Amino acid sequence: MFHKILIANRGEIAVRIIRACREMGIRTVAVCSEADRLALHAQIADECVCIGPAPSRDSYLNMQAILSACEITGAEAVHPGFGFLSENSAFARLCERCNVKFIGPSPESIDRMGDKANAKTTMRLAGVPVVPGSDGAITSMAEARRIAREVGYPVMVKASAGGGGRGIRRVDNEDALEAAVTAAQQEAQSCFGDDTVYLEKFIVDPRHVEIQILADEHGHVVHLGERDCSLQRRNQKMIEESPSPSPLMNDALRAKMGEAAVSAARAVDYHNAGTIEFLLDTRGDFYFMEMNTRVQVEHPVTEFVTGLDIVQQQIRIAAGEPLDLRQEDIHLTGHAIECRINAENPALGFRPSPGTVTALHMPGGPGIRVDSAMYAGYTIPPYYDSMIAKLIAYAPTREQALAKMKWALAEFLVEGVDTNVEFQLELLRDPDVERGRYDIGFLTRRMEGK
Amino acid sequence: MFHKILIANRGEIAVRIIRACREMGIRTVAVCSEADRLALHAQIADECVCIGPAPSRDSYLNMQAILSACEITGAEAVHPGFGFLSENSAFARLCERCNVKFIGPSPESIDRMGDKANAKTTMRLAGVPVVPGSDGAITSMAEARRIAREVGYPVMVKASAGGGGRGIRRVDNEDALEAAVTAAQQEAQSCFGDDTVYLEKFIVDPRHVEIQILADEHGHVVHLGERDCSLQRRNQKMIEESPSPSPLMNDALRAKMGEAAVSAARAVDYHNAGTIEFLLDTRGDFYFMEMNTRVQVEHPVTEFVTGLDIVQQQIRIAAGEPLDLRQEDIHLTGHAIECRINAENPALGFRPSPGTVTALHMPGGPGIRVDSAMYAGYTIPPYYDSMIAKLIAYAPTREQALAKMKWALAEFLVEGVDTNVEFQLELLRDPDVERGRYDIGFLTRRMEGK
Repeated sequence: MFHKILIANRGEIAVRIIRACREMGIRTVAVCSEADRLALHAQIADECVCIGPAPSRDSYLNMQAILSACEITGAEAVHPGFGFLSENSAFARLCERCNVKFIGPSPESIDRMGDKANAKTTMRLAGVPVVPGSDGAITSMAEARRIAREVGYPVMVKASAGGGGRGIRRVDNEDALEAAVTAAQQEAQSCFGDDTVYLEKFIVDPRHVEIQILADEHGHVVHLGERDCSLQRRNQKMIEESPSPSPLMNDALRAKMGEAAVSAARAVDYHNAGTIEFLLDTRGDFYFMEMNTRVQVEHPVTEFVTGLDIVQQQIRIAAGEPLDLRQEDIHLTGHAIECRINAENPALGFRPSPGTVTALHMPGGPGIRVDSAMYAGYTIPPYYDSMIAKLIAYAPTREQALAKMKWALAEFLVEGVDTNVEFQLELLRDPDVERGRYDIGFLTRRMEGK
Repeated sequence: MFHKILIANRGEIAVRIIRACREMGIRTVAVCSEADRLALHAQIADECVCIGPAPSRDSYLNMQAILSACEITGAEAVHPGFGFLSENSAFARLCERCNVKFIGPSPESIDRMGDKANAKTTMRLAGVPVVPGSDGAITSMAEARRIAREVGYPVMVKASAGGGGRGIRRVDNEDALEAAVTAAQQEAQSCFGDDTVYLEKFIVDPRHVEIQILADEHGHVVHLGERDCSLQRRNQKMIEESPSPSPLMNDALRAKMGEAAVSAARAVDYHNAGTIEFLLDTRGDFYFMEMNTRVQVEHPVTEFVTGLDIVQQQIRIAAGEPLDLRQEDIHLTGHAIECRINAENPALGFRPSPGTVTALHMPGGPGIRVDSAMYAGYTIPPYYDSMIAKLIAYAPTREQALAKMKWALAEFLVEGVDTNVEFQLELLRDPDVERGRYDIGFLTRRMEGK
């Protein structure tokens, strides 16, 4: 097992990883930007190295600075968390060359899943269901038109290097196709430095249902059931739950999706934790969307229902340990829901609201977990993601978990900055959300009053 | 089900009960003393009634004020928590007379268990093992001498109305008997207004192992396994865990102790939640000590290992609902440990340390539960118990739960007042505690360097 791990991240996920390491008897090295010297992750790690100025490219994305920090502290491994360098194969490769273990999949697996168009082809060949569309990148407008006609409108134009909802356009008829392709290419170029796009049939009213997998470095792969992340605003997840409240979800569908996810992981020789995102349509058919080759923001809901510690499993896998889990021993018990708490103002278009937290009370008690890096007096810097806490509620039934979450949100008090706590509470009180009747378009329709 | 419940308590247990009510859709009324107007329980309840000045006898022990608060707010039931009026049968009777449901056992059950000497006789007649000694109160020194000779020295002299470690004396030989009886009587008189004492054989190096029971008002009783509370300072519990780490504990002993606890409850027509405290000796024999006829401080460890919400069960039972639990469905899964965090200075004889909390960070993440009523800026008043938080860690194994607890304690930050956090951490690092090898005398011996 490793003696010392460097955590190449900040915020609640850095704190989460530091805690996991400590429990395993592993010493921790935090890295921080100059803006994060008083951040919780920088304070609770055994050591902390300041790696540069506030902008991410100068610190949390600065590979050389991070690997230098490994060198001077003697860290044997790097946990990248999510975001930042977590899905950057160049960083994974650089770690390999510096003899620092990257806690995640191989650079090759990252590459094979990172290119969304190629990943789809790989999945199709592996027998994993994919959304009908172009077989990889589109090379001309003529080809785009032909494929769109074949699969039928509406269609989606998507950036191959995409993520986070960027570089995506919906096209309802042929007249709008060329403009959409051009716009998606331009956005893809500016966001990801790569203008490759591909084309897919638009699935009507699907749910976002993803499968968590764990794969060791000895060929053993298991899945940990599903998370339903359909409650999204502009392709950004807001609330996640496990199991899925879809009336179509049952043990048979879960097993089928789980097996597809395991096949997907095997097809790219995947190891470590990963998530296969599927669209589940209204008939119970599901389609591969993409794989996230890292730990996810919403991993705690799976931890509650399975009783497993996914971050500790990541570290054990990276240390070469075989998974001591059999698929038949993994069951989902109870129901877990997560709300992302952001410092933002929903009334002002969800404008980020950095600033100093003047008063803070976070809920607690049975079945409540708060993953956060906030404290009273902490100043939320303006440079990073606006998520300041994850609130997770767990109970024997969905109804009880929802009731627990509502009162936990009602008790959550943050003064000094605006938050989306009230917005989340109102969303959970929606009768359709209460009944679990929502798809990925639900929140947009609701906010636009449709 | 009740529509509105009044919580006749303060601090973390009041917050705990308010949260349970909210999840069940029940409105809550807090009561507070003048010193507690800014206390968390007073702030998060739906309504709050100030019932008097800071001293407990003028507020939290003021039965008339509490029942008046029920009257003016329309509360249909009272949850007494622990301490204060929770084991006061006169209060339970007064509630009955005012048509307010007391969430706990009947006044008769409280009385039958409240008199420790009589309770022992009742238990002996019900076939529950009891410590050999006087059969009820001792009426003369001659009788005390005769019984002490019969059971053999050392013996214990105990107050019948006792609790919290008061009115107890150990006697090693006959020369010391008379003085000990007199001292115990005087202490009993001043603490409890009743100088009745009884005599028991002193059990050498026992563990304190208690069984949680739930009994509905229709004759159904189940037990939720054991808690080991042997880590005590002056008969005050400091750390509790479930299951017991005693090498003698196994499914057979758990079932045997559980059945004895169920018999004990049945013998006094008990309903609601309660705890039977046993001494477990080094041969695996166990003896009834006393019954706590209320929820206990340490109930969260049982909630973690059973997955049940004991406070919600109390409320359902009081509403007349039948328990929907079968004994065979109740299993202890994983391991839970609780540390009581007190505002006190261990280096100054554990002197209470009230004052303003100037900075606060409480640990979180998977398997961590904090029950507390503290917040940054809160002023801990000098009038009440010094417990300011309960930190509970849960993991698949005891070793992992211990590791989690240690790092959670290390992360716990309270500035402005002294706490026992460091003391608890040091205690958990003791090799004997790590191996689970401790009895009720362990902490005293360790602190006195024996």
